[in-house]
Formats: sequence, structure tokens, C-alpha cells
Amino acid sequence: MADPRFFSRSGPFKLKHLAEIAEAEMAEGADPEMEVTDVGPLDAAGPSELSFLDNKKYLPALEGSKAGVCILSPRHAKAAPEGMALLLSTKPYRGYARIAARFYPEPPLEPGIHESAVVDPDAKIGEGAVIGPYCVIDAGAEIGDGTRLGAQVHVGRNVRIGGQCRISSQVTLAYCEIGDRVTIHSGCRIGGRGFGFAMDAEGHEDVPQLGRVLIAEDCELGANVTVDRGAAPDTIIGPGCKIDNLVQIGHNVQMGRGCVIVSQAGVAGSTKLGNFVTLAAQAGVAGHLNLGDGSILAAKSGLMSDMAPGETFGGLPAMPLKQYFKLVAMWKRMLGNERG
Amino acid sequence: MADPRFFSRSGPFKLKHLAEIAEAEMAEGADPEMEVTDVGPLDAAGPSELSFLDNKKYLPALEGSKAGVCILSPRHAKAAPEGMALLLSTKPYRGYARIAARFYPEPPLEPGIHESAVVDPDAKIGEGAVIGPYCVIDAGAEIGDGTRLGAQVHVGRNVRIGGQCRISSQVTLAYCEIGDRVTIHSGCRIGGRGFGFAMDAEGHEDVPQLGRVLIAEDCELGANVTVDRGAAPDTIIGPGCKIDNLVQIGHNVQMGRGCVIVSQAGVAGSTKLGNFVTLAAQAGVAGHLNLGDGSILAAKSGLMSDMAPGETFGGLPAMPLKQYFKLVAMWKRMLGNERG
Amino acid sequence: MADPRFFSRSGPFKLKHLAEIAEAEMAEGADPEMEVTDVGPLDAAGPSELSFLDNKKYLPALEGSKAGVCILSPRHAKAAPEGMALLLSTKPYRGYARIAARFYPEPPLEPGIHESAVVDPDAKIGEGAVIGPYCVIDAGAEIGDGTRLGAQVHVGRNVRIGGQCRISSQVTLAYCEIGDRVTIHSGCRIGGRGFGFAMDAEGHEDVPQLGRVLIAEDCELGANVTVDRGAAPDTIIGPGCKIDNLVQIGHNVQMGRGCVIVSQAGVAGSTKLGNFVTLAAQAGVAGHLNLGDGSILAAKSGLMSDMAPGETFGGLPAMPLKQYFKLVAMWKRMLGNERG
Repeated sequence: MADPRFFSRSGPFKLKHLAEIAEAEMAEGADPEMEVTDVGPLDAAGPSELSFLDNKKYLPALEGSKAGVCILSPRHAKAAPEGMALLLSTKPYRGYARIAARFYPEPPLEPGIHESAVVDPDAKIGEGAVIGPYCVIDAGAEIGDGTRLGAQVHVGRNVRIGGQCRISSQVTLAYCEIGDRVTIHSGCRIGGRGFGFAMDAEGHEDVPQLGRVLIAEDCELGANVTVDRGAAPDTIIGPGCKIDNLVQIGHNVQMGRGCVIVSQAGVAGSTKLGNFVTLAAQAGVAGHLNLGDGSILAAKSGLMSDMAPGETFGGLPAMPLKQYFKLVAMWKRMLGNERG
Repeated sequence: MADPRFFSRSGPFKLKHLAEIAEAEMAEGADPEMEVTDVGPLDAAGPSELSFLDNKKYLPALEGSKAGVCILSPRHAKAAPEGMALLLSTKPYRGYARIAARFYPEPPLEPGIHESAVVDPDAKIGEGAVIGPYCVIDAGAEIGDGTRLGAQVHVGRNVRIGGQCRISSQVTLAYCEIGDRVTIHSGCRIGGRGFGFAMDAEGHEDVPQLGRVLIAEDCELGANVTVDRGAAPDTIIGPGCKIDNLVQIGHNVQMGRGCVIVSQAGVAGSTKLGNFVTLAAQAGVAGHLNLGDGSILAAKSGLMSDMAPGETFGGLPAMPLKQYFKLVAMWKRMLGNERG
Repeated sequence: MADPRFFSRSGPFKLKHLAEIAEAEMAEGADPEMEVTDVGPLDAAGPSELSFLDNKKYLPALEGSKAGVCILSPRHAKAAPEGMALLLSTKPYRGYARIAARFYPEPPLEPGIHESAVVDPDAKIGEGAVIGPYCVIDAGAEIGDGTRLGAQVHVGRNVRIGGQCRISSQVTLAYCEIGDRVTIHSGCRIGGRGFGFAMDAEGHEDVPQLGRVLIAEDCELGANVTVDRGAAPDTIIGPGCKIDNLVQIGHNVQMGRGCVIVSQAGVAGSTKLGNFVTLAAQAGVAGHLNLGDGSILAAKSGLMSDMAPGETFGGLPAMPLKQYFKLVAMWKRMLGNERG
């Protein structure tokens, strides 16, 4: 289904093999030897193809689907059309992710440094690395084994990038260390001067920003994301964090493991996020706050206070989400009375 | 009036010619043979120059203006100073646009591929195309006739760009097809991986993003805009859409014809916009919603529900705009009582 | 303390010298001849190092600090641990800024034009300027003395950049004039077409944008900032303005001296900011407004009206901040009653 101009498909694969990859159970009636040829969305997958159901909003699409196989939660199995082979999993989306990755593995690239790249003789390029056209790699920089840089990337002086990273075109990296298997999308700006200056009617005076940006392994940073370097402590992004497009991370911010920051959200300076904190789209977090493990901030909310572990806040100003929902309900009641 | 270092002026043109271009009517007393030398804003245009009135906020500027000609709505004609020639139009801004384009046509550029560009032998470059310095054009890419690329653009593998497009410097294009006469501003990122992964305390798992970005003819995408490619269906931007700077368009979003997305707004994954939908600045739209033809979301609003065709929503959370205005009025009343 | 891979330290310096630089007074007991070796944050600085206290939130850190010297306000002097040398200043952060800059001066760079840069023969490059790899400088452009361009910068036709500027990698500059000592961070886009068109169901029609962007001396523009050129008047950024990452400045906006625009804020077209106006993070300002000298808009607020000089607004829609605080207090009371 995927456009072959952009994506190369492997397979077909037997259903039993895909079940294993997905750590899913084949439902009664599913043929383990069935040849599955591709993945696709419910409304487009055909009789030899596999789809998934993760969001119950799409149950009607499941009912009308012609997909030969679907991976879904056992509790939705009944809604599937007759004859559809089912893979049962409590984590169907994760299972689908693995199956899709099996069909569409990352294409191999010829290792090497493009002849047009400007690589300082003092830089170290790992084995199997790919350096695209018009990249600029400054003195002292280190690029790990198997790491790929797209076109026109600038890697600043003494920057270290781990192994198996994917750095898209037109990224700029400065004053930073980046772990293994990190993905950075186009236009991402790492290591700029933090927004630190003494404000004054005589004129603002810059405060030297003497920290770095440390990005741990397995992170992903979206397109046109900006991450400023620390003022004196470092700006730190923990392992496995996922940062969406156009997010701003201020200086001295520290993030634990597995945080998810959705598009256009921003975190002001010196705020600390625990592990697996989620900031939904366009959310904003003030500076010098603490956000506990697993805390969640709803989309477009503006957080001015700490969140304890596991708390969910929303609104402007952000408050515990249940309170915010009550407040909104109250507003609607007031509007109703007004009319009556 | 425009700085000749940056803009080359044509003309002068006779008033009757400009009236024709603008599809406007010359008011009584206007001399069809008058030579008009330039365009300019009301407060700066001189006796041989043409200005426009579109926003009634600027009526005082009209009254004090020394412009020789003004294009405006018939209902504002009385406010013009005596002796000013008037072009009457129910669409004065559109008329002005055409006249200004006549005075300042796009400057011609020498067609050709800059010697420093890295163009894969398998790429096709159309006739009359301009490829700027340090562009990188990958294998299988196609650039249409008369299309211009600025400096340091990266066109990914098999990307197709239509004819007469204007791609500014430092744009990255991947996994996409782009129609004719599309304008893309600097730093725009098309075709990045959608923000799709299975969230999990064990670690987030990427879901392969196997769709494309399809941008129809006559669209404009602003500086540092990000548009992610689809997960399986495509991300689609319909004909004539206008997208301002720093906007985020998530994976699988589908937009109809003529939508207008103002600066820093964001649309989350799988949401569908009909034709001529407007999202004002910094608005946010949640995922998996439907926005009907002609619906409007006010600036900074956060939309969590569908909008029917023609509806206008505003607020956080967004509600029908009239309700939101009532709510704000109620708040103000409460504040007034508090004081009393 | 700062990573020597990225920062080169000068010094040590005698305390009396640092007091002079900071225009601070040595408190009783401080040894003017003490050799200070570095600067650092309160929780990390050692006995020969200097730290600062600016935000009273960090008083506990002061109490536990092992820093040999601290610059702080006289009113916080008592909170310092015994034996810590104190520099007293009513502007401790500014004093620290100057001291830190003394320890970490900007590293010298070999002047010159990298052999890979494409510099039009009609461009003028000032004395002592540094032009990085793969920069593209178009005809008629002028780069001032001592100005540094990183890698892959594009300077458009006839653009003028003053002296002693710092332009980071992958910046694009078009239709603009830039004063002396301006800092522009990576991915910043200056001079794009303003978002001006006549909206119409037949199709939107572009209005030629015939103005420039004028950026006065001593400004700083953050990473991935976008500033559109004027429609006919110019877009103007006054002296000493500080603009953080991912900010949008629309066409025809005029800013006075010393304005501070924090990350992800946006200013719509034709709005005028006086001197020393502050827009906090993610704030939005509608078009055609006037913001008086020293006015402040709180984070995430949406401003639909003018602000008089010195006023502070907040909320959505923005209102005088005191009113907004009252409104929020009222909401909380309503929530309390609900529960009761």
C-alpha cells in the first residue's frame, strides 16, 4: 500500500511469524500459515493485508474493513467482521508497530563521507557512518558507528554523537553530547545560548551560558525543535524521550526517562521533569518547577505550579484536571441559565 | 516607495489600465489618463501614487492621506479627501493586490543549475528551473518547469515538485509530492516522520510512518512550518491553502481547498478540514476531528470537538463563539459585582 | 566548572577586580586579594569560585552553598553561610553576567572567508569578518567589520549586516538591514513574505509585500524565529530587543527599544510595541494594536486590545492582570462551593 517510490516492502510473512513478532495470540480460526503481504489502515487494507485497531473511535471502520488480519485487544474481537483473522494483544498498537517495521525495514545506505562534506581533520567519524552532502563537521567532533547524517548538517566543535543515530538534513548541533540511537529531525537546533540576561532599562546584559545539552540514548527530537544549552548546569534530556515538532526546551531544563512532549509545547528554564511526564500539544510550563513522575499536562494548558507524581493538570492557569472539568461544566451551566 | 535595492518597479500606468486590472470602477471625477507611478500605504503615498482602504480602522488615515488615487469600497467613498481619484470595488484589497503586482512583478532569474548544487544523475530538472547554490537533489526527484529553488534546499529521494513553484532557501522536502505554483518559505520541513509510537513504560516503540505528504497546486507554506507525513494514509493539503509561519500539521491531516492556517497554529493527527476552513493564530485542534467547510476557529482557541460547516468557535476549551463572548461578558460582570 | 571542550576559561582574578567589574561593594570580611578561579551555580561552586543569588527561591541553595564568593543583594546578605565572601549589589545578576563574561570571553576566530563559501563578486565583506563553510552571499550584500557567520548561512541580495554581529549557522536573511552587534541564532528566518493576501472563495490572491525588515543594533533573535518583511511600511525591531526561540513577528510590526519577547510568543501584523515591552512565553498579540512603553503581557495570554504604558495584562482574553487574578480566585471559590 505504501508508495514504493518512498518505501521498500519486505515479505510476505506467515501469520504465525507476525504473531510472534507482535507477542500476540492468534484467535480461533486464524490460519498460522496465512501469507500476509502488507500492512495498512482499516479502511484500505485488503484480504492479504494486516491492520490494527487501537482507538475505539475506529470500531465502525473495523466493522466495514476488508483487511485479512487485524491486531486488536481481545475486548474488541467481537466487533470484527466474520472471516477476519485476529491477533489478540493487550498492546495492539505496539504489536502493529513491530509488524510494520518488519515489512518496512530501514533501507540500507552506502556508508561513507560525501565528497562535498567539510570534515575537520580533528573530527572522528565512526565505522559505517554516513555523512551527507554539504555537511560541516568541526574540530574535535565525534560521530558514532553507523550514525547517519542527512544533507547540510552542522556539527559544532567537540560535539559528540553516539552510534546508530539518525540526524536529518539541516540540523545544527552545538555544545552537546548525544547518546546512541537518537533520532533528530530536520531543522532541530540544539545548544543555542539560553535566554539569559539581566534585564535593565539601561540595556539588557547577556549572562554567559556555560552549560551543555546532554541528550541520552533512544530519544527523538522533532523538526524545528529548539533546545537551549544550560546556563551553568546542563540542559538534560533523559533516555527514550520523545519530543515533537516545534517544541521549545529552555536552559537548565532536566527531563527524566521516557517523557513525551507534544508539538509546540514549551518548557521554561530550570524546570525539572521526572520520568514519563507528558506535556500535550501547545502546553506551556513556567520556569523553576518540578513535575513528578508520570504527571500529565493537558493540551494548551499553562502550568504555574508543581505537579506531584501521577497528577494530571489542565486549563489556564492549569489546575487538577478534574477541577478544570468541573469549572468548564460550571461555565456551561451559567450559560444555560443565562439563556433560560 | 519600496526600497529599490530590494524591489524593481514597473510603470507608470494609466489609471484606466489599473482600474481594469483591479476590476474596479472609476468614480466620477477620476481622470482615466492619469499617470500613476507607484503604490503605497495611505499615510505615505503621494499625489501620483495609489493606495487602498480595506479596514475601516484606517478611515482617519484616508481622510488625511495625500495619495492621488485610492481603491476602496463604494460605501467609504465619501470619507475620501476632495480631489483624490477613487477606484470603487467591493473587493478593494484584491484589487490593490493585482495593481501592486503590476507595479512590482517578480524579477526574472537566469535559469540554470548552480555549479555547486549536488544533483543526482537520476533526478529530472524542468526547463527554465533555477537551482540555487548548495542545493542537494536526490535520486528520482523531479523539479517542474520554471520552478525556483533558493540556496541550500534539500529535495529528497523521489520527491516531485510541480512547475512554477517558489522554494526558498533551506527548505527540506521528503516523502512528498507538490503541485504547481506552490510557494514554500525558508526552513519549512515537509515529510518528517509523524509523531507515532506506542507509549509504554518499557520504552516507546516507533510506528513506521508509511504515508506521504501531498500538497496541491497554489498553496503557500510559511517559514519554519512543519508538515509530517502520514502514518499509512497520506497527509493532504488541498489546493490554494495558505499556511503561515511556524504552523504544525500532524500526520494524516487532510485539508480541503483554500484553508487558511495562521501563525503558530497546530493541527493534531488525523483531523480533517473541509474547504475554506480558517484557524487563527496560535489555535490548536485536537486529533481525529472533522471541521466543516468554512468553519472558523478563533485565535488561541483549543478545539476538542467537531465544527459543523460555517460554525465559528472560540475559547479554551473552544465553544461556539457567541457562547464564548457571553461567557467572557459574564466573567466581567462577576468582576464588576465583586468590586461594587 | 564549564566543560573545557566547549568553553575556555580565563583567570584567576582577584576579588577586588571582580567587584569593580560588577560595580559591587565588597562586604565586611571579604579579602580583596582573594584569587577567584571560576564561576558556578550555588549548588556546585567551590571555595575558590563565585556564584550569585538573584531569585529568592534559591535562598536554601545559598545557605548550603560551598561557593567561596557570592554576589547578591544586600538584603539577602544575612542568609549567606559564614565565611562566604560577599559582593553586594542591587543588580546582582547583571554583576554576575559581567564577571562570568570576564572568565569566559568569546574565543577568537581566524578571520576570513571559507574557501567553500559562494560570495558574489558584488558583495562587500568587512575587515576581520568570518564567513563559514557553505555560506551563500548574494550580490550587493554587505557584511560589517568583525561580523561572524557560522556555516550554511544565506545572505540575500542587497542585505546589509552591521559590524561585530554573530550570525549562527543556517540562518536566512532577505530584504533586511541589520545593525551592529546583533546576534541571530540558528534557523532564524528574516524577511519572508508577510502573510498578506485577499481572502476569497474564488482563491486567495497574494498582496505583494514591498517592505523590509529593519533590525537595530544590539538585538538578539533566537533559534527558528521568523520575522516577516513589511507589506509597504517596514517591519522594525528597535535597539537592544531580545527575542527568544520560535517567536513569530508579523509584517509591519514595529518594536521600540529593549523589548523582550519570550519563546513561542507571536505578534500579528501592524501592531506597535513601545520601549521595554515584555511579552512572556506563548503570549499572542492581535494585529493593529498599540502596546505602551513598559507594558507587560503574561505568559499564554491572548491580547485583543491596546495596553497603556506600564500596564500588565494576562489571561484569555487578556485583561489587566489584577482583574485576571481576581477572576481566577472567583473560579476557585466557585469550585470550593460546589464541593461543599
